[in-house]
Amino acid sequence: MNKFGTFAAKYWSGFICNGIGHHNMIARVMCSLPNEQVTEALAKLLELKAQLGTNDGKQTFVLKTPKGTRDYNPKQMAIREKVFSTIINCFKRHGAETIDTPVFELKETLTGKYGEDSKLIYDLKDQGGELLSLRYDLTVPFARYLAMNKITNIKRYHIAKVYRRDNPAMTRGRYREFYQCDFDIAGQYDPMIPDAECLKIVHEIFSELQLGDFVIKVNDRRVLDGMFEVCGVPADKFRTICSAVDKMDKLPWEEVKNEMVAEKGLSPETADKIGEYVQLNGATELADKLLQDDKLSQSKVALEGLADMKQLFEYLTFLGVEDKVVFDLSLARGLDYYTGVIYEAVLVQNQADTQVQQIEHCEPVGVGSVAAGGRYDDLVGMFDPKNRKVPCVGVSIGIERIFSIMEQRMEASDQKVRTTETQVLVATAQKKLLEERLKLVGELWKHGIKAEITYKKNPKLLNQLQYCEETGIPLVAILGEQELQDGVVKLRVVSTREEVAVARVNLIEEIKKRSCQS
Amino acid sequence: MNKFGTFAAKYWSGFICNGIGHHNMIARVMCSLPNEQVTEALAKLLELKAQLGTNDGKQTFVLKTPKGTRDYNPKQMAIREKVFSTIINCFKRHGAETIDTPVFELKETLTGKYGEDSKLIYDLKDQGGELLSLRYDLTVPFARYLAMNKITNIKRYHIAKVYRRDNPAMTRGRYREFYQCDFDIAGQYDPMIPDAECLKIVHEIFSELQLGDFVIKVNDRRVLDGMFEVCGVPADKFRTICSAVDKMDKLPWEEVKNEMVAEKGLSPETADKIGEYVQLNGATELADKLLQDDKLSQSKVALEGLADMKQLFEYLTFLGVEDKVVFDLSLARGLDYYTGVIYEAVLVQNQADTQVQQIEHCEPVGVGSVAAGGRYDDLVGMFDPKNRKVPCVGVSIGIERIFSIMEQRMEASDQKVRTTETQVLVATAQKKLLEERLKLVGELWKHGIKAEITYKKNPKLLNQLQYCEETGIPLVAILGEQELQDGVVKLRVVSTREEVAVARVNLIEEIKKRSCQS
Repeated sequence: MNKFGTFAAKYWSGFICNGIGHHNMIARVMCSLPNEQVTEALAKLLELKAQLGTNDGKQTFVLKTPKGTRDYNPKQMAIREKVFSTIINCFKRHGAETIDTPVFELKETLTGKYGEDSKLIYDLKDQGGELLSLRYDLTVPFARYLAMNKITNIKRYHIAKVYRRDNPAMTRGRYREFYQCDFDIAGQYDPMIPDAECLKIVHEIFSELQLGDFVIKVNDRRVLDGMFEVCGVPADKFRTICSAVDKMDKLPWEEVKNEMVAEKGLSPETADKIGEYVQLNGATELADKLLQDDKLSQSKVALEGLADMKQLFEYLTFLGVEDKVVFDLSLARGLDYYTGVIYEAVLVQNQADTQVQQIEHCEPVGVGSVAAGGRYDDLVGMFDPKNRKVPCVGVSIGIERIFSIMEQRMEASDQKVRTTETQVLVATAQKKLLEERLKLVGELWKHGIKAEITYKKNPKLLNQLQYCEETGIPLVAILGEQELQDGVVKLRVVSTREEVAVARVNLIEEIKKRSCQS
Repeated sequence: MNKFGTFAAKYWSGFICNGIGHHNMIARVMCSLPNEQVTEALAKLLELKAQLGTNDGKQTFVLKTPKGTRDYNPKQMAIREKVFSTIINCFKRHGAETIDTPVFELKETLTGKYGEDSKLIYDLKDQGGELLSLRYDLTVPFARYLAMNKITNIKRYHIAKVYRRDNPAMTRGRYREFYQCDFDIAGQYDPMIPDAECLKIVHEIFSELQLGDFVIKVNDRRVLDGMFEVCGVPADKFRTICSAVDKMDKLPWEEVKNEMVAEKGLSPETADKIGEYVQLNGATELADKLLQDDKLSQSKVALEGLADMKQLFEYLTFLGVEDKVVFDLSLARGLDYYTGVIYEAVLVQNQADTQVQQIEHCEPVGVGSVAAGGRYDDLVGMFDPKNRKVPCVGVSIGIERIFSIMEQRMEASDQKVRTTETQVLVATAQKKLLEERLKLVGELWKHGIKAEITYKKNPKLLNQLQYCEETGIPLVAILGEQELQDGVVKLRVVSTREEVAVARVNLIEEIKKRSCQS
């Protein structure tokens, strides 16, 4: 009976999923059957199910959003718009224009740009015509846009959703559909000036958002490549070793070393040499030290990277943001297209949180990257038929984690968030005044007042007042027979319940005055 | 040689597309071949092509956006943001909240909601996991959202891109990826009050956008259904006859009739009966007339629809927008989910344009629908396991056509559009002052001033001033050795070339003052 039991259980959930409520009857049919009649019973069951399925008529739906995605409700939208406005204001303060590109690109536009991450790209079904994929980031579409329009200089921001078939961890703000807020500077300029501005922008945004302390880690692809070279990593293993180093913010060195040796075939000696470097971090003095390093100074690319790093720290000092920036040799961003400086901002939990977590053996400090970027001087050239280069540097603010933190705070604080901006509800205490309400609310709209009415012919005053309380509408304009005769409107302040008669001709002005005060 | 010629021509373009420049050699190979050697030549050509393809090394890309889609450049974005802000302000003035949903839904969420248009849905490739489709509109995701969260009352707007594998006509603003701006009212209310507000919103938006005269056509699904019933259309042909009627704004009645009879199997008599009705339009007096109509008054649903239409016109009069609204029996929106009132706004070209067009036998007046919507009382129930209804009515503003018109106007007017908001460029006339520029621009950013610097160590003053002219930056803050010594900054007005020395401590205030004036 074991097998049959399993089958029945399976069917059971099948029936329940289909929302058909004939369990009892079927249970009676199925109990106490001798083993040999199982096949017959199965056939009957299937037949019954088919009948029920068609007779039922109504289709039943799985009511959910796709895996790794979510809706934003009005409260979440209010938070989102606040965060966006901080970020957009910062981008505009730095003189950026904005562009937009389609949500999908030709598949070949994305091919060969993301290294190991390419397997996470969403493809569209081939329905005839072009092969398309959803954009994986905003950087590759930006490079395609520059090459296609032969643009050699631009400072632009782009805020839009991108798509990755990654393992979602939604409570920590990791989604398959998520927003990126990108700021990039394209053009042939003097070294590290645009790069320093990108870091300044990260500093400004996270200072303004007040999410707590943060650190911006910086490194350089050339320093990493030079380091691998002098440590004896074969050139064809640079990228895969790079992605191992990239895990050092989550794993202890011993585990990263193990991956390099056991999985990626590096000798333990080479791994140890890398280990000495990647555990270093500091500021401009670290760049000085490494410039003197016997081994590293033998690599031309490393020297270039280190000289630029010194220059970068000098500019960051002039901009007053060097305090939050750390030169960290373990930072190794995975994407293929970076060619120079790379960076990543992480939030640092406060002392109290950290101590609790350390006791409980959780992640020590960082709650994950909230911004990242770097220099990609060759990407535009990959799209240009003549391989003309347009050097670029940029940063992407990963706002889903920021939303998560702000939402949690909002919930914890029990703060009421208004989701509309309505200034006044046009209400009546008496019946048969819909015409008057419609005329008055139309007049208010005409003068730019944000106003609502209740969609009932004869609503109760109590219900109308309650609606204001619930949604935070501060004023009610009450009409009645007497008010209409007297040419006035009773204006009620919801919070104080104070009521004054306002001459109809002065109503607009009065509402505007009171809205400014609050 | 004809066939071979065609083949060669094909190949030709193939080679050109691949960017391989060996045309002459291949041309020499191919000329003067006897007919019988064609096959051999073909093989050689293919081999040659394959070799060239691999030897070339560098991948060549087709530099384009997917069919039916486009990028928005900074100027187009400036127009887009202006239009969005007009629309969002209107939605907020009417007390709407906003939500957002994912760009894709489970495929089954969209199944069976769009009638004949379902073939235009983009599906995602099955990469394991759920079957997904790109959203076709914002209405079905909204209904799914309401059912999933058991929301029975909401007034919300949603501005987002939707996707249709339609035949694009991009010069006329018809794209495969396009924005919809939706406003919907969900809830059990008294008839036609929310419906009237939706039409008021359309009226407000198109009045504000100043795109020229417009008309809002209204009709009712129930009037259409009643009309089909009394004319003798079989019930199972209502939808397909409906979609024939829907073409009356583009085709003369005779052609529509022909579709009904020849393609859809209606008797000519039935079609003629329909023809008598669908050529009627008017206002509330037409509803009165039809309520008295011998045939139509025999249909219960038609009477309900006509009574509501009268009510609607009454409310529209109270709201002062009845002048632009026409009760048009030929309006028959294609989507399956409508249950009551339906409407569509069209722009009306001015007299002069119309006369020219009529002479040239072009489309007579409308330049196509710019907003559309209606009542869909059963859609949310389709998602609810218990079929609980949430009556809804809404409108969708189709802004791509609006963009097209505004872009064309902008180009025609030769008006300069600023794409950034930068108030001041921090510049130097002398070398080696990058440090001072960085310090000053950092100070300006700190105080919320929108400011830029040139990303060069020693830029020429002329280039810096030229950048301001090109991008419309109104002010330049010029630093030099002398200014640094004196504790001042030279503030230059780009338009007048006037320069004044401003004490460094007063600079922020001075820039703010001047920015308010302009």
